[in-house]
Amino acid sequence: MRTQVAIVGAGPAGLILAHLLHASGIEAVVIERQTRAYVEGRVRAGVLEQGTVDCLTKLGLDERLRREGLRHSGTHLSSDGEDFRIDLEAASGGSCVTVYGQQEVTHDLFEAAEARGLTILFEADEVRLHDIETDRPAVTCRTPAGEHRLDCDFVVGCDGFHGVCRAAIPADILRHFERVYPFGWLGILTERPPVAEELVYASHERGFALASMRSLMRSRYYIQCDMDQRLEDWPDERIWDELALRLGPSLGERLQRGPSFEKSIAPLRSYVAEPMRFGRLFLAGDAAHIVPPTGAKGLNLAVSDVSMLGEALAEYYAERSVAGIDAYSTRALARVWKAERFSWWFTSLTHRFPQTGAFERRMQVAELDYLRTSPRAQAAFAENYVGLPLI
Amino acid sequence: MRTQVAIVGAGPAGLILAHLLHASGIEAVVIERQTRAYVEGRVRAGVLEQGTVDCLTKLGLDERLRREGLRHSGTHLSSDGEDFRIDLEAASGGSCVTVYGQQEVTHDLFEAAEARGLTILFEADEVRLHDIETDRPAVTCRTPAGEHRLDCDFVVGCDGFHGVCRAAIPADILRHFERVYPFGWLGILTERPPVAEELVYASHERGFALASMRSLMRSRYYIQCDMDQRLEDWPDERIWDELALRLGPSLGERLQRGPSFEKSIAPLRSYVAEPMRFGRLFLAGDAAHIVPPTGAKGLNLAVSDVSMLGEALAEYYAERSVAGIDAYSTRALARVWKAERFSWWFTSLTHRFPQTGAFERRMQVAELDYLRTSPRAQAAFAENYVGLPLI
Repeated sequence: MRTQVAIVGAGPAGLILAHLLHASGIEAVVIERQTRAYVEGRVRAGVLEQGTVDCLTKLGLDERLRREGLRHSGTHLSSDGEDFRIDLEAASGGSCVTVYGQQEVTHDLFEAAEARGLTILFEADEVRLHDIETDRPAVTCRTPAGEHRLDCDFVVGCDGFHGVCRAAIPADILRHFERVYPFGWLGILTERPPVAEELVYASHERGFALASMRSLMRSRYYIQCDMDQRLEDWPDERIWDELALRLGPSLGERLQRGPSFEKSIAPLRSYVAEPMRFGRLFLAGDAAHIVPPTGAKGLNLAVSDVSMLGEALAEYYAERSVAGIDAYSTRALARVWKAERFSWWFTSLTHRFPQTGAFERRMQVAELDYLRTSPRAQAAFAENYVGLPLI
Repeated sequence: MRTQVAIVGAGPAGLILAHLLHASGIEAVVIERQTRAYVEGRVRAGVLEQGTVDCLTKLGLDERLRREGLRHSGTHLSSDGEDFRIDLEAASGGSCVTVYGQQEVTHDLFEAAEARGLTILFEADEVRLHDIETDRPAVTCRTPAGEHRLDCDFVVGCDGFHGVCRAAIPADILRHFERVYPFGWLGILTERPPVAEELVYASHERGFALASMRSLMRSRYYIQCDMDQRLEDWPDERIWDELALRLGPSLGERLQRGPSFEKSIAPLRSYVAEPMRFGRLFLAGDAAHIVPPTGAKGLNLAVSDVSMLGEALAEYYAERSVAGIDAYSTRALARVWKAERFSWWFTSLTHRFPQTGAFERRMQVAELDYLRTSPRAQAAFAENYVGLPLI
């Protein structure tokens, strides 16, 4: 089989790129290791930046998002149980975030892919990249239908942190930057209305908590926990009690407790691989970088990567100019590092670390107090939270 | 001897408070352990916040400051040798900083104290506080002239980190918050024009450097060094070479090297004592808190403390209202913690720590890049650098 761009991975990054290329009249084939049902079933992030919504709108994929997504013009921070609101829309000069689960985004992307006739090979095993240093790279894989060979102009690795694409870049070229945090997030989903209309990020003496949501009837809560804890250590009632404590008395009282139907402990990691291009291979999204979930940058960063890459590839095919693709890695990384910084900073501000002594805790509280009282600090927070512009 | 307010310590905090009280018609006596020459000779900070200049202006102590001080409407940050400017005046909405050595401030304060007939007891040894829990506290000391007993209404401890006043607060009342940084500042003074018209704070892979000044002909430079280093390890040429490296090629080339006439290594510490009041004793300045010198908050924080305390005492004597003095500790500490946060943050951003790995260094570089490119981040930086308002 011959195509112009082979995309490895049918998560949001790969699917949005396929749609972007389709809109520019560029042929692409997406190769996915799992089934569609598996990909759609993965519970992931749920807060979309303004730019992500704009991108989906441009692709005509915003109909259900407009209808079912929850537009949040503000967010709450809580310091030892006392919360305050940041008016994101006012502080950022008009931008908002939208609560719409990654599962919903993925579903819409798959539906539209089918309607638009995009090619996706599911259950693709033994994915191998070939000749990415030449102008004629290829990807081979095996699906239930048999062996495949995709000859193409470019390969894009949207196959996540554990994918095969990044590993195709020679070890002496690739630089890794990594930090693993000494705690995890214990998350639950429950069919109860969220405790507040907007998200609440709580920095508490006892550790971080987040009151989030998927819809007006489905709540998503997280608490910081040690990574050596097991789910059995955390029956629902213990989670509710701990959440109530960390969110503080006024929110804790309003918490609508219900049975959890999803419960998991996830590690927190910061990771960046440089460069994001090698020969005819490009990396995008989690294949190149991971952020801790505080601030919900992961999915949004994948979208900004593929937005830049989509532009660069469109320029290449329209004008035979390599300027865009040559600039991609540098351009994408400039934004990636800023989002990494924000996610790291927001994590540092709100979590309890082993080295958080009395002075360090006061630094967190002072920074929260500064954010509470300074319109300038709120403006800087807001522009990061709603998403920095693509430059 | 009887007075209304006994002030321990004739540094800037104590002297400014004495002037403020004098302006309000309140009697005060200042007790100083050293001679005037010793106090005036201490090499200290040199960057005054807008509010500090405003305070000195209000006291009619700004004549020489206006003439000889250097008004800086901006400052430079440098990231691995590439510098950029933050327009403090534009970003803060009209405020600036003024370069005018603490020695000059102290000299002006002593001159005016003499002219205005303020009472200062020099070389006061064996300073003891008495009955600070009662309405009739007293301070005793011994000077070359003999024993003294000062009966007063209030005692104010402006006697620095190692002074006796803080120690008069019972241990079970006082809470300490402290961080000692794992490095020091090696500082030199030289009679050469500064390398740049404004200050340059350099965050370099090899560590922090600061190009500062006392006047257009006198430069003050600092480099981060290990605390186990000795001055003998740092002949002038080694300092100049290291400075040139850390400031980067374009500034490094312009560095005017000259013999250093002052050279010292100072430790960096963050420290706050709470509360800042016990009975009839108030603490102000370094007696209650220390900041690392990055951002030059130490002297300025002492001035904002005594400005608040001066107001509170004036209110007490004018209206017999204790509202102001009762609120002093909480009000002062709210601003102290914000300045502690800024100084800690600015130190963290620009220094090399033992735990600064490749990822952490990239976080510093990303934050500097964010500051370079975001007007909102610059506005938040600027409002802290020129000094947060007294609220």
